[in-house]
Amino acid sequence: MATDNKNIPARIEAFRSYMREAGISAAVLPRTDPHLSEYISSHWHIVRYLSGFSGSAATMVITLDEALVWTDSRYFLQCARQIEGTGIRMMKDGLPETPSVTDYLLDHVGAGQTVGLNGLLMSVNETAALRSALNSRGIRLAVDFDPIDNVWTDRPALPADKVFIHDVKYSGETASSRIARILDGVKPLGADAYFTSALDEIAWTLNIRSNDVNCSPVATAFLYLGAKGSTLFINLDKLTPEVSAHLAEAGVEARPYDLVMSVLPEISAGSTVLIDPANASGAIEEILGGHVVLAVSPVRMLKAVKNDVQIACVRDAHVRDGVAMVRSLIEIERRIKSGERFTEMDVADILLANRSAQPLFHDLSFESICGFGANGAIVHYTANAESNTAIGPDSLLLIDSGANYLDGTTDITRTISTGTPSEAMRHDFTLVMKGHIAIATSIFPEGTRGAQLDAMARMPLWKEGKSYLHGTGHGVGFFLNCHEGPQSIRLNDTLAPLTPGMLTSNEPGVYLDGRYGIRCENLVLTIPYEETEFGRFYAFETVTLCPFDRTLFDLSIMSPEEIKWVDDYHRKVYDLLAPSLTDNERTWLANVTQPLGK
Amino acid sequence: MATDNKNIPARIEAFRSYMREAGISAAVLPRTDPHLSEYISSHWHIVRYLSGFSGSAATMVITLDEALVWTDSRYFLQCARQIEGTGIRMMKDGLPETPSVTDYLLDHVGAGQTVGLNGLLMSVNETAALRSALNSRGIRLAVDFDPIDNVWTDRPALPADKVFIHDVKYSGETASSRIARILDGVKPLGADAYFTSALDEIAWTLNIRSNDVNCSPVATAFLYLGAKGSTLFINLDKLTPEVSAHLAEAGVEARPYDLVMSVLPEISAGSTVLIDPANASGAIEEILGGHVVLAVSPVRMLKAVKNDVQIACVRDAHVRDGVAMVRSLIEIERRIKSGERFTEMDVADILLANRSAQPLFHDLSFESICGFGANGAIVHYTANAESNTAIGPDSLLLIDSGANYLDGTTDITRTISTGTPSEAMRHDFTLVMKGHIAIATSIFPEGTRGAQLDAMARMPLWKEGKSYLHGTGHGVGFFLNCHEGPQSIRLNDTLAPLTPGMLTSNEPGVYLDGRYGIRCENLVLTIPYEETEFGRFYAFETVTLCPFDRTLFDLSIMSPEEIKWVDDYHRKVYDLLAPSLTDNERTWLANVTQPLGK
Repeated sequence: MATDNKNIPARIEAFRSYMREAGISAAVLPRTDPHLSEYISSHWHIVRYLSGFSGSAATMVITLDEALVWTDSRYFLQCARQIEGTGIRMMKDGLPETPSVTDYLLDHVGAGQTVGLNGLLMSVNETAALRSALNSRGIRLAVDFDPIDNVWTDRPALPADKVFIHDVKYSGETASSRIARILDGVKPLGADAYFTSALDEIAWTLNIRSNDVNCSPVATAFLYLGAKGSTLFINLDKLTPEVSAHLAEAGVEARPYDLVMSVLPEISAGSTVLIDPANASGAIEEILGGHVVLAVSPVRMLKAVKNDVQIACVRDAHVRDGVAMVRSLIEIERRIKSGERFTEMDVADILLANRSAQPLFHDLSFESICGFGANGAIVHYTANAESNTAIGPDSLLLIDSGANYLDGTTDITRTISTGTPSEAMRHDFTLVMKGHIAIATSIFPEGTRGAQLDAMARMPLWKEGKSYLHGTGHGVGFFLNCHEGPQSIRLNDTLAPLTPGMLTSNEPGVYLDGRYGIRCENLVLTIPYEETEFGRFYAFETVTLCPFDRTLFDLSIMSPEEIKWVDDYHRKVYDLLAPSLTDNERTWLANVTQPLGK
Repeated sequence: MATDNKNIPARIEAFRSYMREAGISAAVLPRTDPHLSEYISSHWHIVRYLSGFSGSAATMVITLDEALVWTDSRYFLQCARQIEGTGIRMMKDGLPETPSVTDYLLDHVGAGQTVGLNGLLMSVNETAALRSALNSRGIRLAVDFDPIDNVWTDRPALPADKVFIHDVKYSGETASSRIARILDGVKPLGADAYFTSALDEIAWTLNIRSNDVNCSPVATAFLYLGAKGSTLFINLDKLTPEVSAHLAEAGVEARPYDLVMSVLPEISAGSTVLIDPANASGAIEEILGGHVVLAVSPVRMLKAVKNDVQIACVRDAHVRDGVAMVRSLIEIERRIKSGERFTEMDVADILLANRSAQPLFHDLSFESICGFGANGAIVHYTANAESNTAIGPDSLLLIDSGANYLDGTTDITRTISTGTPSEAMRHDFTLVMKGHIAIATSIFPEGTRGAQLDAMARMPLWKEGKSYLHGTGHGVGFFLNCHEGPQSIRLNDTLAPLTPGMLTSNEPGVYLDGRYGIRCENLVLTIPYEETEFGRFYAFETVTLCPFDRTLFDLSIMSPEEIKWVDDYHRKVYDLLAPSLTDNERTWLANVTQPLGK
């Protein structure tokens, strides 16, 4: 039982007293913030406060006599453990017998009763769907029910870190230019203004950063861009004189964060505002009244396509990240060979130490995942004091980690042998690498979507009755979120074409429950390849620089082309990293990047 | 200029006189029938009659001073040739500068005016979209404008061929059972009856066939299935006593075809009828009033998944089709070697002669495509008296053909060398075969859609800047339409999972404008492969039996696995066809199916 679970029932009871007062029969609590972020600051961990469950996929419902948390299969075990003893019921999303939140509400709330929600925490699309379902049964949806400040008396404040400027020598484009391109982008859709709650969009647009969310260098804010001027809603204490000047230069006025709902109608009067129904909340749509165009945010595509300055930076950042990875792998190997006890959390510390020593390092881009043996088979595993496992011999260690440098975001996974690997380990590793290489060597025509390529990464595993359930690739930000859209390489189609300048992960894997996990991840940049009578063709350039474990390849199931790809990649890794290494490190790297056949 | 183009302007003028009389400012003429068929009987070739254009993708618009035909890139050349001298304007669908039919109407019809349409010729979805666009500008849509009988005085009658029973020893399931499964399928969608205009659905459901459409053994009819009984709307003269008894046994009453619009409201009173908005017309939706559920037809999936009896039949039919193909290839080779003149149309005749000599042969499943040299690069080429080309040496001959047997439908493409192939021909052929083999050897988990596999077929071409624009695979009927849904293997997702029992084509190709075309097509059956801790996996069984041209393989760019696939396939072709061949034929087949390395 999690340490402070004993307080949960009292917290829920306190919450219910406000429900009774407001005449609310059921409250819906999505696990997000008013920016509908995946990564949220501690101020917004309402579901964790009221349930004990800390997973990233969660929706809580509190009625006058029940409390429930919906989560998905990644979190079934963790959720069960964290809510143990609280009386809260876990609802397993995705199982056929589990009702949706909406279905549950329809079954448990009567006609004439009211469901309560903080409307800033649910998207336009979801709010509309929920309201329509409830109204069809005569149930009211109140989108202004937000008593949490009264219940959570020691609630952390909104983050107060200062905002800083992301230098144009890294971003490659001024805020003014980006604002102009966004406003150009909304015009064909019938709008003349744009409003966004998405923190990564705001950071990208204005070339500003802060530290409001763990591993995500964003500032908590809302941004309105209009033909007559732009407004950033932000805690004004976060702004230094330099940042204020920077904003003014881009024609952006700063106003207090809390005023967004009252000021927005006034500054948008006479304009038609585009909002993205997937990332703007129902509350924002309501406050804007009828003068709204609902459409996919134009910033998503603009932000995903890196410019030439950013591309040069991404390549540079990956040299430094590669050096940090090589030093970490050398230290991990030393500890394994020395026989001294060290753990998954020690591995994470080694990675942090080597990355933070690199120039332009800002922070990790996500909590490092270091899973030894069976822990490597838990896809979203992060070692903590309780689970932390010592690294032992003759198994596999999966290390998924990355950093935010001022000049780019990295995300890399390596799986390494901690002794003599079994035949099965080598076989499975090589199947995963065959998929990785199939993606890395893909050539595809303009217009191709990641979903079309996804099966190439899986086919070597599928042919042996194996698979993995996560995506093969996600978009990656630029000194921003490690996960960003709109492109991806996955089973389900996301319709965004792979466009030159996009940075995407290539990370097939395989997870053998209770035994080991394997994942091999590099980042790939979409680049132009050739133009023929059949049109324009694109390729991937692998930008991540770090050797794969040579001892894990089974050459007998690799084609000559696949072996050559690994050898060529290893040669490139050596050539680009060697100048930054010490003699001893260089010798180590030369050894582990020898051709596979040797 | 097509021979009878001189009459076209007068026909259009006659049509306009009825437009004026009815107060119609613009008439929309879709090229389909009241069953929204892809293949239509001559009675419904209204667009061809009024324009001269015979392509399968066409929509005609006639205003009081203009006549236009929309078609897509497959038909730009053919359409231009066929409408030459008529004054009709070709509208190139898919080009950015081409307005849609709807946009054209909005620009050329004024508020208060009326657009006319025979509402039976446009789907629910398209009718709703058109009406909504027109109404938004104050333009009326009349869905009962159908003066063609007055203009087309020698219009062919509806087909009068007799209906015949498709024996349950081939179909594997009685009509009663199919009706019961369909009605079970509509219940979860809130309906208790089903109405279909789709001729292949009706033929499948009732185990009946006829010859109403060229190469498509369907009967022109509408079918209503209800809890209280079912009604087939059909020209009663088409029914023999046997067929009438067969229908009665399944609880199906036959009523005259022309009564569908008047009888349907009466027999469906009190029921909720499911119709598929993609294959039922707007006129049908209107006549059914409000008691309609719009949803994907449950028959599509039921029909696509062949039962065990059908699967055994499909394998049998492919042995006979393979024998016919081998005999045709022998004859084609003989004529090439003899030096006697023969043409593309002669090749089609050879195929027809050999197929029609086979037991259970009914008809071709589509007009044979025999394209020599540059003609092979025209994807939808069918030789006619004008284009017919003599087969010459040292080029490629593309032969795409198939038949309907009582026990299955075939569709096969072979590309053969007519002498000594060039390096480029062998290289391109081998790239296409690499894609073909990648599909043929795919293993994939339950739930996989064809769109996920499509890129595997294209990647060898993409890597060399080549491509093809058609789909890699389409569903294939059972003694029915050569093209059927819902599954496909193509760039765009169709969401239908590849399910055991589905029959799909595997037909990558490459087309070098003015030089040659290559396509390699077999049919593949989805079959169970294995079940592991990761779930159920499926495979493809190639059912088409006919050698590929050994002289066209470039072994230097093939993997050992790819060479082995061809050798194994050729051994299977030999083993299964040899018992049905003469000694000489067997010797020929043994020679052309030798291992590639020999």
